[in-house]
Amino acid sequence: MSWNTFGRVLRFTTWGESHGPALGAVLDGCPPGLALSESDIQPFMDARKPGQSKFTTQRKEPDQVKILSGVFEGQTTGTPISLMIENVDQRSKDYSEVAKAYRPGHADYAYDAKYGFRDYRGGGRSSARETAARVAAGAVARLILPDVKITAYVSQIGDDEIDRSAMDFAEIGNNPFFCPDAAAAKRWEKLVDDARKAGSSLGAVVECVAESVPAGWGAPVYAKLDADLAGGMMSINAVKGVEIGDGFGVAKLSGEQNADPMRAGDNGPEFEANHAGGISGGISTGQPVVCRVAFKPTSSILTPVDTIDRDGNNTEIRTKGRHDPCVGIRGTPVVEAMMALVLADHKMLHRAQCG
Amino acid sequence: MSWNTFGRVLRFTTWGESHGPALGAVLDGCPPGLALSESDIQPFMDARKPGQSKFTTQRKEPDQVKILSGVFEGQTTGTPISLMIENVDQRSKDYSEVAKAYRPGHADYAYDAKYGFRDYRGGGRSSARETAARVAAGAVARLILPDVKITAYVSQIGDDEIDRSAMDFAEIGNNPFFCPDAAAAKRWEKLVDDARKAGSSLGAVVECVAESVPAGWGAPVYAKLDADLAGGMMSINAVKGVEIGDGFGVAKLSGEQNADPMRAGDNGPEFEANHAGGISGGISTGQPVVCRVAFKPTSSILTPVDTIDRDGNNTEIRTKGRHDPCVGIRGTPVVEAMMALVLADHKMLHRAQCG
Amino acid sequence: MSWNTFGRVLRFTTWGESHGPALGAVLDGCPPGLALSESDIQPFMDARKPGQSKFTTQRKEPDQVKILSGVFEGQTTGTPISLMIENVDQRSKDYSEVAKAYRPGHADYAYDAKYGFRDYRGGGRSSARETAARVAAGAVARLILPDVKITAYVSQIGDDEIDRSAMDFAEIGNNPFFCPDAAAAKRWEKLVDDARKAGSSLGAVVECVAESVPAGWGAPVYAKLDADLAGGMMSINAVKGVEIGDGFGVAKLSGEQNADPMRAGDNGPEFEANHAGGISGGISTGQPVVCRVAFKPTSSILTPVDTIDRDGNNTEIRTKGRHDPCVGIRGTPVVEAMMALVLADHKMLHRAQCG
Amino acid sequence: MSWNTFGRVLRFTTWGESHGPALGAVLDGCPPGLALSESDIQPFMDARKPGQSKFTTQRKEPDQVKILSGVFEGQTTGTPISLMIENVDQRSKDYSEVAKAYRPGHADYAYDAKYGFRDYRGGGRSSARETAARVAAGAVARLILPDVKITAYVSQIGDDEIDRSAMDFAEIGNNPFFCPDAAAAKRWEKLVDDARKAGSSLGAVVECVAESVPAGWGAPVYAKLDADLAGGMMSINAVKGVEIGDGFGVAKLSGEQNADPMRAGDNGPEFEANHAGGISGGISTGQPVVCRVAFKPTSSILTPVDTIDRDGNNTEIRTKGRHDPCVGIRGTPVVEAMMALVLADHKMLHRAQCG
Repeated sequence: MSWNTFGRVLRFTTWGESHGPALGAVLDGCPPGLALSESDIQPFMDARKPGQSKFTTQRKEPDQVKILSGVFEGQTTGTPISLMIENVDQRSKDYSEVAKAYRPGHADYAYDAKYGFRDYRGGGRSSARETAARVAAGAVARLILPDVKITAYVSQIGDDEIDRSAMDFAEIGNNPFFCPDAAAAKRWEKLVDDARKAGSSLGAVVECVAESVPAGWGAPVYAKLDADLAGGMMSINAVKGVEIGDGFGVAKLSGEQNADPMRAGDNGPEFEANHAGGISGGISTGQPVVCRVAFKPTSSILTPVDTIDRDGNNTEIRTKGRHDPCVGIRGTPVVEAMMALVLADHKMLHRAQCG
Repeated sequence: MSWNTFGRVLRFTTWGESHGPALGAVLDGCPPGLALSESDIQPFMDARKPGQSKFTTQRKEPDQVKILSGVFEGQTTGTPISLMIENVDQRSKDYSEVAKAYRPGHADYAYDAKYGFRDYRGGGRSSARETAARVAAGAVARLILPDVKITAYVSQIGDDEIDRSAMDFAEIGNNPFFCPDAAAAKRWEKLVDDARKAGSSLGAVVECVAESVPAGWGAPVYAKLDADLAGGMMSINAVKGVEIGDGFGVAKLSGEQNADPMRAGDNGPEFEANHAGGISGGISTGQPVVCRVAFKPTSSILTPVDTIDRDGNNTEIRTKGRHDPCVGIRGTPVVEAMMALVLADHKMLHRAQCG
Repeated sequence: MSWNTFGRVLRFTTWGESHGPALGAVLDGCPPGLALSESDIQPFMDARKPGQSKFTTQRKEPDQVKILSGVFEGQTTGTPISLMIENVDQRSKDYSEVAKAYRPGHADYAYDAKYGFRDYRGGGRSSARETAARVAAGAVARLILPDVKITAYVSQIGDDEIDRSAMDFAEIGNNPFFCPDAAAAKRWEKLVDDARKAGSSLGAVVECVAESVPAGWGAPVYAKLDADLAGGMMSINAVKGVEIGDGFGVAKLSGEQNADPMRAGDNGPEFEANHAGGISGGISTGQPVVCRVAFKPTSSILTPVDTIDRDGNNTEIRTKGRHDPCVGIRGTPVVEAMMALVLADHKMLHRAQCG
Repeated sequence: MSWNTFGRVLRFTTWGESHGPALGAVLDGCPPGLALSESDIQPFMDARKPGQSKFTTQRKEPDQVKILSGVFEGQTTGTPISLMIENVDQRSKDYSEVAKAYRPGHADYAYDAKYGFRDYRGGGRSSARETAARVAAGAVARLILPDVKITAYVSQIGDDEIDRSAMDFAEIGNNPFFCPDAAAAKRWEKLVDDARKAGSSLGAVVECVAESVPAGWGAPVYAKLDADLAGGMMSINAVKGVEIGDGFGVAKLSGEQNADPMRAGDNGPEFEANHAGGISGGISTGQPVVCRVAFKPTSSILTPVDTIDRDGNNTEIRTKGRHDPCVGIRGTPVVEAMMALVLADHKMLHRAQCG
């Protein structure tokens, strides 16, 4: 886990900038003999790719993934799988203003402070385009988890939350918001469109549930399954908070309320609640693994904001160009990918130690 | 970052069980020439150690730290610093019941599911006693950050939050709750004592602020400063949620509200807000680094809870023995230690790349 | 350092197979602000590339390197540098026989034993073509070491060694063998050509000297500079031995003979010998770092050898196709690249700890 | 693999100085359920410990190992195993001279150059006492390899080699030199004793053979089994060279001579030679894994050697105190331990990827 690499035994490294020729991921340690072709990956790329509705950036990227290594005659060989996505719709002229001044809330200033300069085209390495590479890697990780069902969805945009009693996973694919509540999705159309028209942006919460994760994945102490999920999710652009199970809600609970009582079931233990989100002591319990992730509103907005330029003088900035009015929406497939990557890594790590 | 090791260039490994002869940490990569003796570490051990008030476990542990290597004539040598804390107040008889049945919410079942058996004495490796080792390592990490001021405090117990307008860091040391709000501390005395008497427990929220962190620490993409903070904090026992800056609050904000406007100041840029919690794009901005951590209520409670035994039969469990009615309280020095360890690691990592 | 990644803070990951569409390296952690273009890398690619004389494989590969990320306006940005080399001269038909039977001495059998099957085209991942990727990464690493002069040369082919009294680094570029002894180079022409005509192959020894390495790079105990050199060099295809300084020769020396006496010099300490090869206790001494590497003869030879096929039946194999009669020759630029990568990593690692 | 940690999934970290209160190892990732007590480790400690014959240092250390964690009711729990060895026979006065001047060939100067000062007592961290910790860790690693037989022996002292036709592993335990050739052992008595009396020292070669290693352990490219062996062995004090199989001898061989022909056997493939030392393409072939390691003569000798003092003035140094006349002898159990640690790590790594 160093610089641009994530994972313990199943490791991936991503590279590339928003407006470079391409970006990609190298997934290393993948088990051999898994059937893999580009068509196994592309649907996940398509779920994340921009320009699919007026609720996302209008940048048009096919996000076509190419497998450059690690697959022979349709099967993974156990060697590094190099995945490449070419950038086709760069418009660097859009970014001339960003070159001179810092977008508050964006990484512009921090990058200059660290490196002395930055690739300002579309945010360079700090752009959410990096997440295309992990979605590609995550699609391969899913092949290591044939029995695990991973579902992420948007549960809140701005201060408008879904109605959990009305939640239906089948709805997620029926709207441009990955929303499991049809009524909320309807409301969000106006909410997001208004923000877009106003040159503003909105925050969101994405939830992710992994079902059929067996008990025993994860490890003490710094390789806890939830610690890796927290680190992985927090590494996603615009994420400012991560919760496992009830998350911050547990602060308000008593020990009795927070306990997930166990009962003998026909197929092993059954739990009468899942406040823990499927993880105790950093190790999976066999319950669904539940993670919540908070996305901030897009920092690149048309509304002018006070800032300084590279020379340290006061100015204000209006970010033209093409931006998501709510990055959390397209963050959903990324959250799913990180869940898959962390779980596959821990499945292999568990196998290493416990056979 | 593997199994029981944390860190990138400043790395530490912890070992030990709640009722073993001792526990400890090996801190590796520490710069040479830092003045270090046990007396530099002990105050932080004392802040965390149990048995100091009726609001914490009555287990009596001096938590005396011994430096076994890496220091010569009062200075760090650059070689591994081995820190050991002997356990003196074990009472394994307390745990006979835990050996047979699983405490809901605790790691008991998950450990058995993973390893086939477990050291049930005091929770073995899953006990919060492990955190004594990281507090010791964190005390050394602070020496690498002479200019950074790290302060953690409890901001909420159960559903009783502090009044931020009444916050005063000078109060933190004046009460047994690490509470910066004297009035809240007063209220919490009854709140926590009632829970203790009722054989129940309470959750809490701990906040941590690191001041005078220069801009430029952290790195894309999987070595983001906030990703490491999230992973490190989530690895602390009983933690279920981590926020940076406004955390989940950002979901409710618009882009304009979330932006931290910048102005030219006499000593470089000044920010008019800190929604970002001092980190943008995974890199510090020079603002205070702000992190919030949610602790669940102690799982070991006297109130009976439905559970199963090791043979899979229904039973109920009442955890006698000695436990914290609110683990979040003693989690405060641990959160400070993790902040110090992550920041020191990133200071060194930044120096490696950017000189 | 996992699977296909090497390095501690300056890390690189290579990917690709001999007959895939491309291969490459992702170099991560590179300092920002270094002037870098493809023309800085290409000369090192050209030194290694095949088909340049009758003494190397006749496969024709331009080994044109492309920089896909991490460089902006001619300077490194501090983000991952993705380097890609396209394969253009694959002739998979050459390898039909290798698909069925195992080349003794080659990785064929070991790969099948591990993975259950293998990409047999040109040896797949086990092909020395992987070394093109590290030569590219090494060319970038050299930019981190502007003052260090790295020179590798062939000192022995078969049992014909160079005459050290006749050694002249200026000769290295004047012959197809990277040989610093003109007379030896002349002899080797017949030696290697005879082996080629006979369908045989030859082993070789490559030596590498790094001058102007300051004292203090390296670290105890498992991050010793010589330990990393040994691991890095042994990871090169066909390498079976690594020596630092006098290497196995030290076994024959007495303590007095092996000591490198020190004298006060005008610019710090001077050493009267360099048996240690510039490294003591895993840390550089300021003397030239000297490393020797043994390359086995190419396993793919025209002469028939007894072997078994994939079904376990006895057979014999003659490897047609295009192969180097002496892989050690083209191993020379690879040894230089590994020296550069290890030294640059340790320069940065030293800076992380000691400022 | 960072600083003082070695291994990929089975990782160990060593700590401690020659004259500190203790030294130790933390072995992390060990599988659960292995029967382990101190008596499983002590025999290997005893094989390495000093003061057992006049051919080794007269420092008297019982090297009693204590297990401080990771074992419960006689079985490994899967959590970190902390192993501690107390130093009892320090005589720091012996080292007053070393504090002022540098021993040529020793790490003294390099440590000062790196860290600015050093723990000069017995060489501090650079002392071969560190190897006691890895021998302890190696003893545990052997439990992960119940079917693998690891044997190391001294094959050469000075320029006196064993007669391979007279080799008998049963002899190794019958002499103080770990020598499999009784006649050579007899000769070495005088050879080593003469060096000792002359205040000189001798180099040596240690060979290690691991039998019954299954085919398939190891991985491309930087996690090659032989790359890890090379790095691990080179990290041992005083080691200057590492060979796998024929090592540097392969340089003199033709492709036909170097090939290890394969034949169909009753229990899978049989090899008619083992020039490869059991490893091809970085992966085990099922043949015995063979490694050779060169140890330099002890740098601490009574014979005066020209050197400089800490102030840079010319002087000479005679190292009194207690030293091994031939460190290679006691290096033998250390080489065995490293072989066990590397093989166990790769057994687990293989299981992670290939199930």
